[in-house]
Amino acid sequence: MDTITVSLGERSYPIHIGSGLLAGSTELIGSTRAKQVLIVTNETVAPIYLERVEAAFADRERRSLVLPDGEQYKNLEGLGRIVDELIESGFHRDACILALGGGVIGDLAGFAAASYQRGIDFVQLPTTLLAQVDSAVGGKTAVNHPQAKNMIGAFHQPVAVVTDTDTLATLPPRELAAGLAEVIKYGLIVDLGFFEWLEAELPRLLKQDPAALARAIRRCCEIKAEIVAQDEHEHGRRALLNLGHTFGHAIEALGGYGRYLHGEAVAIGLQMAAETSVELGLIDAADAARVGALLERAGLPTYVAGLSGRDILSRMRLDKKAGSAGMRLVLLERLGSAVVMPAPAEAALESAMARRIASSQG
Amino acid sequence: MDTITVSLGERSYPIHIGSGLLAGSTELIGSTRAKQVLIVTNETVAPIYLERVEAAFADRERRSLVLPDGEQYKNLEGLGRIVDELIESGFHRDACILALGGGVIGDLAGFAAASYQRGIDFVQLPTTLLAQVDSAVGGKTAVNHPQAKNMIGAFHQPVAVVTDTDTLATLPPRELAAGLAEVIKYGLIVDLGFFEWLEAELPRLLKQDPAALARAIRRCCEIKAEIVAQDEHEHGRRALLNLGHTFGHAIEALGGYGRYLHGEAVAIGLQMAAETSVELGLIDAADAARVGALLERAGLPTYVAGLSGRDILSRMRLDKKAGSAGMRLVLLERLGSAVVMPAPAEAALESAMARRIASSQG
Repeated sequence: MDTITVSLGERSYPIHIGSGLLAGSTELIGSTRAKQVLIVTNETVAPIYLERVEAAFADRERRSLVLPDGEQYKNLEGLGRIVDELIESGFHRDACILALGGGVIGDLAGFAAASYQRGIDFVQLPTTLLAQVDSAVGGKTAVNHPQAKNMIGAFHQPVAVVTDTDTLATLPPRELAAGLAEVIKYGLIVDLGFFEWLEAELPRLLKQDPAALARAIRRCCEIKAEIVAQDEHEHGRRALLNLGHTFGHAIEALGGYGRYLHGEAVAIGLQMAAETSVELGLIDAADAARVGALLERAGLPTYVAGLSGRDILSRMRLDKKAGSAGMRLVLLERLGSAVVMPAPAEAALESAMARRIASSQG
Repeated sequence: MDTITVSLGERSYPIHIGSGLLAGSTELIGSTRAKQVLIVTNETVAPIYLERVEAAFADRERRSLVLPDGEQYKNLEGLGRIVDELIESGFHRDACILALGGGVIGDLAGFAAASYQRGIDFVQLPTTLLAQVDSAVGGKTAVNHPQAKNMIGAFHQPVAVVTDTDTLATLPPRELAAGLAEVIKYGLIVDLGFFEWLEAELPRLLKQDPAALARAIRRCCEIKAEIVAQDEHEHGRRALLNLGHTFGHAIEALGGYGRYLHGEAVAIGLQMAAETSVELGLIDAADAARVGALLERAGLPTYVAGLSGRDILSRMRLDKKAGSAGMRLVLLERLGSAVVMPAPAEAALESAMARRIASSQG
């Protein structure tokens, strides 16, 4: 088992990564001392993992809430359902929420923990690769607005992240690929060596080789923990983690949160960010092609269909990274080094996106 | 004009108290540099004060949202309406919300500011005595759950509080009295001298004498600013500010948030806290009677009708001050000194409450 610490003074917390951690491990049981725990999970995860987590907390006052599965349920109504359950259970300020699932459950249950009684503890128990490498770490919680993603939320750090790598064995290939989009992102923003390792070891990752997956998860968590410790509230460097996300969020929202998985939209967004970087002369077309090749080998889309550049652009203006002074984008100055810059002129942006819109593919 | 500072390091902010501050004063205009401002107010306040606040920010990108008036609109749906407006207006992370109204508007708009894009700036422009002396200061924001008050919220400090004491001239007498409940609370918890001043000067306050009101507002803000600076997130001393509120919140919730104003429920709660303190031998019956006399002279209720002690008690258990170890209450060890204690046995609590339930009055 590996343990990585997110260093945030009094709010520091461990990320435990290992096999079998959901089966009543010391790490799981020690993740909270709360006497009242609410396990929040979804209909897909519950039949596989809920029982073992419930068993681990058998000595606590314990409730479980099983929500429908999907990004479209990550909204204010979902928040209301969790709060209803907490209130009906008579749960107090010293209760703890356990978020058992992927990024949707983590974001939603995390925001419920941030806002119930103005803040209670929560533990992340991520069961998807995407959540394990990205969304479960760093304290960003939120729900979506029908028009834009993660518009309503809070920074609220978990008290622990317990990552059981065994859960990946039951992860559908499409979900595994979606997680790899974020894994590739870490290489692109700060670590060319890791990007090259991914190029070499992708076949092992796709075959779900436990050692390769554990190594990838650990490296992503190390990078994220370091960036979050430096810039918890995203006043600066943390924005690099949003590479591909301004494009991606717009594409997700335009698809009604049901068409693309978050990681798939991010993959298209990473590619569009690479194309924009080419358009500005920051990287070569060959670099962008190298990004596309790795994403495609991972089984990820790099083209979007049925949307125009103009649609995407107007939705991007709603994104959180925009400011009244104009939109800013995370772009690549080279593979392994991202920078935040003012967005280029509309024409340049549309021309870059056009290279990744399927109708102009042929 | 008086200015009191809430000292919270980088998040310190001024409370400006004076006449005419909503009419484009330097204090109002300087309260935010944001280029995008959303004024959130209600149907009662808008016809009187909205125009002058809009005029003060005429050079900004400015929107106004007028909500219905009442505690029953302080819920997740109200939050959704504010977020809709922010998104439809294309407002970004560097926008600012101006909360123009009483405690309901301040709490609701403040929670919208806390959670929109994970936190944007807001300014409190309190127009009721209750908001000016209490709810606009200290960064507690929240919405209600149908079953319990302020269950969903955040600690999010405003960037400034601008209190125009002229607004009290249009305040209905019932609202003025509701504010006086919180004013009396400050005297009870930490300042016997202020309580005695209130006993002497109440007639001037009820006649809306501007100098007396300004003095009362200033003293309350001084006390609250000092307590909040010591204990922003209510791990200790800040809980004293909840004197009467555990009883009061239960009474408000049982009345569906429409029957009693918050301050009226707090008045009954202050009295019940005093009776409980008598029950425990902390203060004399004469002290409790003195509290009741001042509240009644202020035009406030000190008896509740149509509810049983058992109803109130079971609702109190849902309150945020409760913990899994049992309910804690703020009680009086003497007039001018409050303490947090474990709640006494049920029988003692019900007996204390029974003295202030109208059906047992005669």
